[in-house]
Amino acid sequence: MREFRRDPVIGRWVIISSERAKRPFAFSKYEREKNNIEECPFCWGNEKFTPPEIVSYRQQGTQKDTPGWWIRVIPNKYPALRIEGEVIRQAEGIYDKITGIGAHEVIIETQHHDKDIYELELQYVEDIFKIYRDRILDLKRDIRFEYILIFKNCGYQAGATLSHPHSQLIAMPMVPVRIKQEIFGALKYYEYKERCVFCDIINYELQQGSRVVIENNDFVAICPYASRFPFEVWVLPKRHDPIYEDIHSDELKNLATIMQIINKKLNLALDNPPYNYLLHTSPLKELNLKHYHWHFEIIPKLSGVGGFEWGTGFYINPVPPEEAAKFLIEV
Amino acid sequence: MREFRRDPVIGRWVIISSERAKRPFAFSKYEREKNNIEECPFCWGNEKFTPPEIVSYRQQGTQKDTPGWWIRVIPNKYPALRIEGEVIRQAEGIYDKITGIGAHEVIIETQHHDKDIYELELQYVEDIFKIYRDRILDLKRDIRFEYILIFKNCGYQAGATLSHPHSQLIAMPMVPVRIKQEIFGALKYYEYKERCVFCDIINYELQQGSRVVIENNDFVAICPYASRFPFEVWVLPKRHDPIYEDIHSDELKNLATIMQIINKKLNLALDNPPYNYLLHTSPLKELNLKHYHWHFEIIPKLSGVGGFEWGTGFYINPVPPEEAAKFLIEV
Repeated sequence: MREFRRDPVIGRWVIISSERAKRPFAFSKYEREKNNIEECPFCWGNEKFTPPEIVSYRQQGTQKDTPGWWIRVIPNKYPALRIEGEVIRQAEGIYDKITGIGAHEVIIETQHHDKDIYELELQYVEDIFKIYRDRILDLKRDIRFEYILIFKNCGYQAGATLSHPHSQLIAMPMVPVRIKQEIFGALKYYEYKERCVFCDIINYELQQGSRVVIENNDFVAICPYASRFPFEVWVLPKRHDPIYEDIHSDELKNLATIMQIINKKLNLALDNPPYNYLLHTSPLKELNLKHYHWHFEIIPKLSGVGGFEWGTGFYINPVPPEEAAKFLIEV
Repeated sequence: MREFRRDPVIGRWVIISSERAKRPFAFSKYEREKNNIEECPFCWGNEKFTPPEIVSYRQQGTQKDTPGWWIRVIPNKYPALRIEGEVIRQAEGIYDKITGIGAHEVIIETQHHDKDIYELELQYVEDIFKIYRDRILDLKRDIRFEYILIFKNCGYQAGATLSHPHSQLIAMPMVPVRIKQEIFGALKYYEYKERCVFCDIINYELQQGSRVVIENNDFVAICPYASRFPFEVWVLPKRHDPIYEDIHSDELKNLATIMQIINKKLNLALDNPPYNYLLHTSPLKELNLKHYHWHFEIIPKLSGVGGFEWGTGFYINPVPPEEAAKFLIEV
């Protein structure tokens, strides 16, 4: 079974995908992520253990599905959604569902089994953010899709089942409720102030200073004022743009630089914590949300935090973002 | 520092409480919850290790803050909020904050260090749900408070730092955004259908059958149609009521019974998983939300689930609720 189901109260779409339960380790209590290079399906030489690649950046003259690549995009072997079929919207009694159509891809970020992005050369990090853009541009031609989520789980506690660095992409036929709420909140602000709330945040933070971790010409990294989690970091483009895939080629380098520095700082400050990041960008068919502003949200997963918060949507954060920012600046 | 801060985009209030970072184990990477009876501050004989009790159910003739109780309510030793002071709403630059005023209490559910609720005699479980009601009725007389959250973290992975069974209560001067969204969604449904969405869910589920785990005269336990997590269970009262503390005394027994059975089934099915539950009830100053319906949401925390979901509000659930319900019925 693979389908989207809508919570009739909140309006939240959830993917019910029983194929996912077949993954190795799916509910094992004590297993950690697979960390053995010989067996790692994301390492050079093991390409045969994954579905055929969708696209890769690779050395000239090397063959598809063989070594020689430095970024490789493949379909998820245990996809939450399937790519073939029609998007059918149906009632199920009093409820609403949609067929589980979508793309679920894995972006293997590097051939190096255990290098986090701060350990890669800058040009290779730039390519990660470039390939996010490429994949969105390719998939948005498919008119069935309304939204593309791009995210990274690093570390078992953050949901990764393989330790080799990778991010994921899910293209889906609706807009996630969290993104809808964010856009709705930003719209209310815009209607009142006639300004983008994210631009206001950027300007105020740069002027105020205490929550800015780092900035460069194109981007700023802040610990947000109402951080849900200790050491939560947002990376925002200074140039107002609602759409990630509109990023200019010359901005990719500065994005890679700031993401790499934040990654290094979080690893140093928190002793290589598990973490998630998520790209927040416009729905595919919204061509000009002047009140919205794409950005990345990065969340290290610290132990002793996040039990209660997990299911309730209510947050108690023991580390003020000003302290987190100070620590990250100094580290 | 203890304050509420409002996310300017989503409108989510977050508690920033640096006092909480002083707890033992706050960010330790490998520690598990304290599990030593001699040192357990929630055991009989160790009452001196906690702040003085607020209220308790105890054997006649025994003294406050001494053994003899079977339920004991105390202020949290590391409170996220403080009870004394004025609720002051202020701007901070472009942002909004409120002083961190509120009650943060611990409900020690039993004198037994390692009995989960299914292992207690029914009358003692009934008293847990009775004392929730008592505490709400007491605290709602304080006009500073707008909402009371009651929740339980059981197990380290679910956020508990002490293993002795306890739940928590937080009274606060605003309504959490998740509750607001739920009430808003239920209102939209009501406006369209002129019926309570939760009553519709109960009626439909009882008629359809495949997601009902158990019911009795007053309550029904279901695996919700759009379950975010494997084995998520909601317990709803059949009698429409938006307000938990309106529960009739003769309903408490059936609530205790159904919560105990669900607890036993989840422990059997999933090998004593960490779990959270959360009471969803009306804001204190909303006296008649005819479109809302109080209930409990119970979420077992299984490994291999919940990394990505944690920070994003987007959910992939590998276990269809019909399968979860079937398994829980049979176990």
